[in-house]
Amino acid sequence: MSLEKVCIIGSGNWGSAVAKLIGTNTQRHGDLFESTVRQWVFEEKVNGENLTDIINREHENVKYLQGIKLPENIVAVPDVVESCKDATLVVFVVPHQFVRGVCEKMKGHLAPNARAISLIKGLEITSSGTRLFSEEIERILNIPCAALSGANIADEVAKEKFCESTIGCPNIQDGQIFHRLFDTNYFRINVIQDHVGVQLCGALKNVVAVGAGFTDGLGYGSNTKAAIIRRGLMEMRKFGQMFFGDMVQTETFFESCGAADLITTCSGGRNRKVAEAFVTTGKPIDVLEKELLNGQKLQGTLTAAEVNEFLSARKMVAEFPLFHTVYRIVYENAPVECIVRDI
Amino acid sequence: MSLEKVCIIGSGNWGSAVAKLIGTNTQRHGDLFESTVRQWVFEEKVNGENLTDIINREHENVKYLQGIKLPENIVAVPDVVESCKDATLVVFVVPHQFVRGVCEKMKGHLAPNARAISLIKGLEITSSGTRLFSEEIERILNIPCAALSGANIADEVAKEKFCESTIGCPNIQDGQIFHRLFDTNYFRINVIQDHVGVQLCGALKNVVAVGAGFTDGLGYGSNTKAAIIRRGLMEMRKFGQMFFGDMVQTETFFESCGAADLITTCSGGRNRKVAEAFVTTGKPIDVLEKELLNGQKLQGTLTAAEVNEFLSARKMVAEFPLFHTVYRIVYENAPVECIVRDI
Repeated sequence: MSLEKVCIIGSGNWGSAVAKLIGTNTQRHGDLFESTVRQWVFEEKVNGENLTDIINREHENVKYLQGIKLPENIVAVPDVVESCKDATLVVFVVPHQFVRGVCEKMKGHLAPNARAISLIKGLEITSSGTRLFSEEIERILNIPCAALSGANIADEVAKEKFCESTIGCPNIQDGQIFHRLFDTNYFRINVIQDHVGVQLCGALKNVVAVGAGFTDGLGYGSNTKAAIIRRGLMEMRKFGQMFFGDMVQTETFFESCGAADLITTCSGGRNRKVAEAFVTTGKPIDVLEKELLNGQKLQGTLTAAEVNEFLSARKMVAEFPLFHTVYRIVYENAPVECIVRDI
Repeated sequence: MSLEKVCIIGSGNWGSAVAKLIGTNTQRHGDLFESTVRQWVFEEKVNGENLTDIINREHENVKYLQGIKLPENIVAVPDVVESCKDATLVVFVVPHQFVRGVCEKMKGHLAPNARAISLIKGLEITSSGTRLFSEEIERILNIPCAALSGANIADEVAKEKFCESTIGCPNIQDGQIFHRLFDTNYFRINVIQDHVGVQLCGALKNVVAVGAGFTDGLGYGSNTKAAIIRRGLMEMRKFGQMFFGDMVQTETFFESCGAADLITTCSGGRNRKVAEAFVTTGKPIDVLEKELLNGQKLQGTLTAAEVNEFLSARKMVAEFPLFHTVYRIVYENAPVECIVRDI
């Protein structure tokens, strides 16, 4: 059996933490993987030097994961085609707006038996339908694509703090290979087959976190927040089962990608924080994005708008009172108290 | 149809918050309940006066729920037999060590069609078996007994902060009656049939909270805590389904009594707090109970010992690594780091 040839597409904060895991595991499991892992790094200058040169000399992504050494078998490559040439396992960890463009460039350069895994959070929702990023990757590259998501903050993973993550992979054999690629004693992987549920959780949790932040802003206690988290988990599951049917399993919501990630996101995280400030300062979301996120867009409010558009087109907003109430508070000036009154 | 005659057995902090809910609802649903609700209050002197006299004059339990007015139809009664005479609905909200004695006194005084509901947290676990408090009430009084549990902190409920709670009641009709007795716009009740799962959650969550407190003491992040909460939820469910079979439903763990209460208990709460101090101070649990709890016993460590004895007798500790690791850390001097290493 020939060895799996791994490449990582992306090198931000999460991509760098994941490179550390993967580089360690390809060395550890030499029976299964080629040791060398190429990582596509979007080239930029850091103090006048190419970031890829710094990574390959210092074994550290000084821009996005400072202070953490990467294994020396991680090789930064500035050209996406070169990075993925003949790869059999492709790990996608780029911001979602780059997926399509990157995949188009990679077309025809992977090994014939290549498989992918998406670590990209979110999904595209429009009034006409939903599309998972794994589906987008499968469509363009014509290879199967699994998904990984969990209660994972990049910096904590990089510092080897214990956490769990979930891989959703319909093909059981591939799932075992991805397990070996990611699992360590501090980053524990559970493999399930429901890759749709894994991705839905990663996208919809941010809407719930906005709701949780509202209750924090209102000064409500931990009972109230626990109720919002619970209702959110139920609506996430209902959304999955209503629009993806039996593909989405109840068990998925007990996994790290489900309940655990939702709890973390509603305890800390930017969505919760900005929503809290929305209540306490009375400022609009776009002003808070400038003040608190350096102008980056908040994921939870964007997703709330997309979900609402999707549900409205189907006359189903009433079936998802928490999602709909978050939308009404952010976009229709509904009183914040609705977050408990109307759900 | 004759009206339901309600009595409340117990008048501590939670019993008083519940009396407020019940007194409001018996007035609101005059088609279903007699307005007057008798509440058994363990008589004690407050500033030289009987607590029952103060409650009946001031409509406030000045000792256990200061600052909250009770509805005037709540009547404090110092004699337990008088309080429950001809009652058709009995709400048990006493500390668990009093259940048996109180039930023995009540025997023969209830209405023939009486039904009970237990708000008592915990269950009796010994090496020979487990017994729920609802079972104990059913056995002594020979009436059916439902259960209520949820993410409910008494003071927050009394102040009308939004939260949810779960009623487990095998009889659907009785479940609807209990729904009307407890549900308000700020205290939202879901009724399910699984009264066993509802009670198991209330007991076992405290063991998980001890584990969560250990990770706080170790300075681990929110990912780690979310992983402990998730694993704990899985072991709670496994315990229920292994020892109570089909009576315990997966859905129960998505209810307020399940995931939501567990989240709250692992975020705040005394079990988490004492476990954190156990790590940071190095002091034994009994010393911390004196220092932090005025000598009261911590529920989570007691339950951990009972659960471990029960599982040991069945050679099943390895099937519940989180429960077992909490036990080993508290009682066998296992290193605290085991909480992530050994689960």
